[in-house]
Amino acid sequence: MSAPSPAPRELANAIRALSMDAVQQANSGHPGAPMGMADMAEVLWRGFMKHNPANPQWFNRDRFVLSNGHGSMLLYSLLHLTGYPLSLDDLKNFRQLGSPTAGHPEYHDCPGVETTTGPLGQGIANAVGMALAEKMMAAQFNRDDCEVVDHYTYCFLGDGCMMEGISHEVCSLAGTLGLGKLIAFYDDNGISIDGQVQGWFTDDTVERFRAYGWQVIADVDGHDAAALHQAVLTARANTEQPTLICCKTVIGFGSPNKQGSEDSHGAPLGHDEIALAKDTLGWEYGPFEIPEHVYTAWDARTAGANAEAEWNALVARYAEQHPQLAAEFERRISGALPDGFSAAADAFIQSCQDSMEKVATRKASQNTLDAYGPLLPELVGGSADLGGSNNTVWKGCKAVSAADASGNYLHYGVREFGMTAVMNGMQLHGGLRPYGGTFLMFMEYARNAVRMAALMKQPTVLVYTHDSIGLGEDGPTHQPVEQIANLRLTPNLSTWRPCDTVESAVAWKAALERQDGPTALIFSRQNLPCMARDADTLGNVARGGYVLSQTGSGAPDAIIIATGSEVELAMAAAAQLGEQGRNVRVVSMPATDVFLAQDVAYRDAVLPPAVRARVAVEAGIADYWFRFVGLDGRVVGMHGFGASAPAADLYRHFNITAEAVVAAVSELL
Amino acid sequence: MSAPSPAPRELANAIRALSMDAVQQANSGHPGAPMGMADMAEVLWRGFMKHNPANPQWFNRDRFVLSNGHGSMLLYSLLHLTGYPLSLDDLKNFRQLGSPTAGHPEYHDCPGVETTTGPLGQGIANAVGMALAEKMMAAQFNRDDCEVVDHYTYCFLGDGCMMEGISHEVCSLAGTLGLGKLIAFYDDNGISIDGQVQGWFTDDTVERFRAYGWQVIADVDGHDAAALHQAVLTARANTEQPTLICCKTVIGFGSPNKQGSEDSHGAPLGHDEIALAKDTLGWEYGPFEIPEHVYTAWDARTAGANAEAEWNALVARYAEQHPQLAAEFERRISGALPDGFSAAADAFIQSCQDSMEKVATRKASQNTLDAYGPLLPELVGGSADLGGSNNTVWKGCKAVSAADASGNYLHYGVREFGMTAVMNGMQLHGGLRPYGGTFLMFMEYARNAVRMAALMKQPTVLVYTHDSIGLGEDGPTHQPVEQIANLRLTPNLSTWRPCDTVESAVAWKAALERQDGPTALIFSRQNLPCMARDADTLGNVARGGYVLSQTGSGAPDAIIIATGSEVELAMAAAAQLGEQGRNVRVVSMPATDVFLAQDVAYRDAVLPPAVRARVAVEAGIADYWFRFVGLDGRVVGMHGFGASAPAADLYRHFNITAEAVVAAVSELL
Repeated sequence: MSAPSPAPRELANAIRALSMDAVQQANSGHPGAPMGMADMAEVLWRGFMKHNPANPQWFNRDRFVLSNGHGSMLLYSLLHLTGYPLSLDDLKNFRQLGSPTAGHPEYHDCPGVETTTGPLGQGIANAVGMALAEKMMAAQFNRDDCEVVDHYTYCFLGDGCMMEGISHEVCSLAGTLGLGKLIAFYDDNGISIDGQVQGWFTDDTVERFRAYGWQVIADVDGHDAAALHQAVLTARANTEQPTLICCKTVIGFGSPNKQGSEDSHGAPLGHDEIALAKDTLGWEYGPFEIPEHVYTAWDARTAGANAEAEWNALVARYAEQHPQLAAEFERRISGALPDGFSAAADAFIQSCQDSMEKVATRKASQNTLDAYGPLLPELVGGSADLGGSNNTVWKGCKAVSAADASGNYLHYGVREFGMTAVMNGMQLHGGLRPYGGTFLMFMEYARNAVRMAALMKQPTVLVYTHDSIGLGEDGPTHQPVEQIANLRLTPNLSTWRPCDTVESAVAWKAALERQDGPTALIFSRQNLPCMARDADTLGNVARGGYVLSQTGSGAPDAIIIATGSEVELAMAAAAQLGEQGRNVRVVSMPATDVFLAQDVAYRDAVLPPAVRARVAVEAGIADYWFRFVGLDGRVVGMHGFGASAPAADLYRHFNITAEAVVAAVSELL
Repeated sequence: MSAPSPAPRELANAIRALSMDAVQQANSGHPGAPMGMADMAEVLWRGFMKHNPANPQWFNRDRFVLSNGHGSMLLYSLLHLTGYPLSLDDLKNFRQLGSPTAGHPEYHDCPGVETTTGPLGQGIANAVGMALAEKMMAAQFNRDDCEVVDHYTYCFLGDGCMMEGISHEVCSLAGTLGLGKLIAFYDDNGISIDGQVQGWFTDDTVERFRAYGWQVIADVDGHDAAALHQAVLTARANTEQPTLICCKTVIGFGSPNKQGSEDSHGAPLGHDEIALAKDTLGWEYGPFEIPEHVYTAWDARTAGANAEAEWNALVARYAEQHPQLAAEFERRISGALPDGFSAAADAFIQSCQDSMEKVATRKASQNTLDAYGPLLPELVGGSADLGGSNNTVWKGCKAVSAADASGNYLHYGVREFGMTAVMNGMQLHGGLRPYGGTFLMFMEYARNAVRMAALMKQPTVLVYTHDSIGLGEDGPTHQPVEQIANLRLTPNLSTWRPCDTVESAVAWKAALERQDGPTALIFSRQNLPCMARDADTLGNVARGGYVLSQTGSGAPDAIIIATGSEVELAMAAAAQLGEQGRNVRVVSMPATDVFLAQDVAYRDAVLPPAVRARVAVEAGIADYWFRFVGLDGRVVGMHGFGASAPAADLYRHFNITAEAVVAAVSELL
């Protein structure tokens, strides 16, 4: 057993053993998937993966995504064995509080984890985004003599990912965009949680993916290292199409009594079965014991350091030959905005204030893109087939295609979930700042990818237009009611609903300057007037909530809180109340999360705790606003679904009017 | 032009003319799709559709679903022309407040609209559900001599539906389940909102659907009535597979300057272009003018009345031969629960109270199904591949398959969105009461179908288990935080989060007795103790919120509001505070929507307005609860994402403990 070059199977068995042991130790987890995919992983990681365990952030590394994230012990085993800073103790602490080895792979928490996976289908979507980012960055930065962007994106995915709808959206798109450096391995083990999949999943996956324009390598024995090796070679040889390698595997491979069955999927095998499995596999070591020759064969540190050094030399040569491009490349992969962006944005914001234009905020958003876009070549726009409605196309946009990826705009097609998860992958890849649009209602199709951006702290920008009953005739299927509140309640998501050109420009600036989470920008279909602001007021917009106006001085009699299109109503109501001698303050609150993050002194200055005569007005579900108006306040908002009619009729019908606000305030005074 | 039998094209042109005129009149809408699909619709509706315009609810009618719902004027034109109670004035009021002709087809609002469509891909999913319901009802009720359930489900869908991920989920499932009476027409016009789809949609749809096990009829000229007729015959001849008829069409057919372009998609053509189009089509009538011979040729009232009369005779014969079955059939299609269900459920609830069992509420849910299930043969269970985790499988479950549809349980596979929208279709069809499970987190994949159930007032039952950090090691991707609040904010959705066996049984009873909307039932993974209740308290559970206990009498010093797994913490905290001499009330609030629908006297009795020392405790996002505790209260809840660790560690880590509740109450007193 001290042979200098262990057989692939023995090396794969190290993954199997660690996975069995860790799941057993945690008394929780999924041993079957890592045991089934271990041979695939051995071939890929030892034969092909370009990575440097000492620098998990090396830009030109190959990306590896485990889309069936419940098989996390596969990835942790690989990271540990190849030399990432992930210790045996970390493996022993699988699924324990504070350990980098969470139940599912968590980005940020564990070095070498490229994306958080577990919600099925989103890993392959992230992988599509990474491969797309690679292709775009390569098109922008590579020069004939210097290919500074040049890596593969590999993805493992299982039956669950294949069944999820998002796999259709993103694999279809990957085919259209000709992502030749995307190589996916289908872990075709025929088992999902309910049992043998024939009862609910009978797709001909090979033909399905050929229909998407993929190269498909069918019927590969997922436990045959030589066949797998050849398949990867074939995949890499095709630079025009993404490749799916269909690997027939046995879930829980090596467990004599549980392999090939759902019993190995989601629970520890038990000490006795582990002993039997190790015996079957010829693995003679104790729990968490990896012999030195196995470590040696897995160790990727020297090869990784060499690969990165080689690339560094390439980049140095690139910098000599293309100094400006190299500087921009460095900035882009660092994620830093260009010097001067902030000042330029402020100047644009001021110009919006000065010109007092009355436009729809979706148009204000487009104007902002026209102003900020030229400063930010990293911006990658797109829409789920609503470019002309979301106004996501600005003057400098050029579409990306299979043949020419040098552009900065993606036609995602009618694929909201796919778009959002692909954006997550692009952002995770680095070098690009994606934003993507759809109607606010269809955020719901993408809901969990929005959450994943927030969980992974990825600063994608989500452009949601047609934000309320104000969209009018399309009716209740298209009219958001509870969606804005839904977004606001999402941890680490910043949500802006601007009332005019100024707030729109501030919101975009905040979204782009944010580094640690996504931002939803919510825009109106209908025209909205620009509010007058003095310099102090203008400066406070970025604080998420601020005193826009007051009809008197000192402590107000009442406060009206409003967002977006309803700020206009609040101002009209305040004016009427002012004429009645009331001292009424209007607070514009475009971003409740940003406001709530201000210090208490500021918050109390805007919303004095003693003033309980508070009315919130927003053409969204009323319930959210009790957070701000309390048990004694009133909310003028929606209490049910919208309807199909011209917008003005709907505002009257649902009683979201200045008169209703006046009545509510009067009731409280 | 007064020929007795107008050509198919002339009849189709009536749809085109009405669509152009109505969109122009509304100055809003989508003329291109109806104009492109008019010939398809003419062939289907005049040549094949079995329906009775005088009775849109006739049970054995063919179902027609317009999945590309923005083409609503196609459907309204068909309904008007064939004789449904939808007048020319209704068409003239297209997209106006209160009109049955909403921007997108709205179920309930317009006779003959089988489901609300507009959110792309969900119409075909509903159609799959309808076809599945037909197959299941037929298997349960048809007898050799009497096929009382025997109709087709037809669906039109476009490029947008094809791109959406849900189309993959449900069409894959339809293939697996062999839905031979589902016939879908693909309106392959090559145009979506952003323009010609080649830039973002290059699937080989024919091969894709063959990979799902469908019969696909490729390359049909969607403007050739004879070819379309033959295709439908071929589709109907195949009883083992669903059929996709791929129809090449021209969007905006007949508009000389806009056909074949996205310009005809989503805006009125304009008066001049309409004149040109009518000229091109040879349609010589004014706006909203339909000549008598065209009306005559379209009129389906006599044929419809005859078809229904024939069926009624068949049912009468069935009733003679199978009287008990016929009575049950009548009950089932009426949607009424069996006599005695309510009393039996109450007895079971009492037995839960008496036995005081400590189990996970997901197990309590399964126990309830074991009790209620035998009473309700209309129940159709299922799960998105989590049957053993969601505990949706009860003792009387039998799986439905392509070969045998007589069962009552569906293995939906890992298809949450598909499952939820298929359930909507089954419920809309009638005769069945579907419930389906997944982890609460993955409700997000299905979010918009949940909303559609609420919008359409369909009483599906959504079983969501693993409801909080209490699920433990699977970590933040699987731990709901903001999801419960998200559901609660959805109009017309009832949301229950029971704390024990008793509340679980009450929640299921409420869900099943509800007729006008869906119910989300939220259950724990972990065991929860059963709370003691006297008869009055037990009776109040159904009111959604009630006083579970109080440590003193009279007006309480403080109120603790809790749900689900946190009721136990609230009780422990109250006990500690009681020992300190505090008079603390615990309010269990399993269903906030039900509680808020109670009369003010009841609500004020449970939550006396004067008592402002209020603390809510729930292992979900804190913000929601300010609705109940106000500006002066406190919320013990989540403020960010969860983590991977054993549940007990997480509760301590996130400070959701009895001690935290005691501290919060103490702070207020």
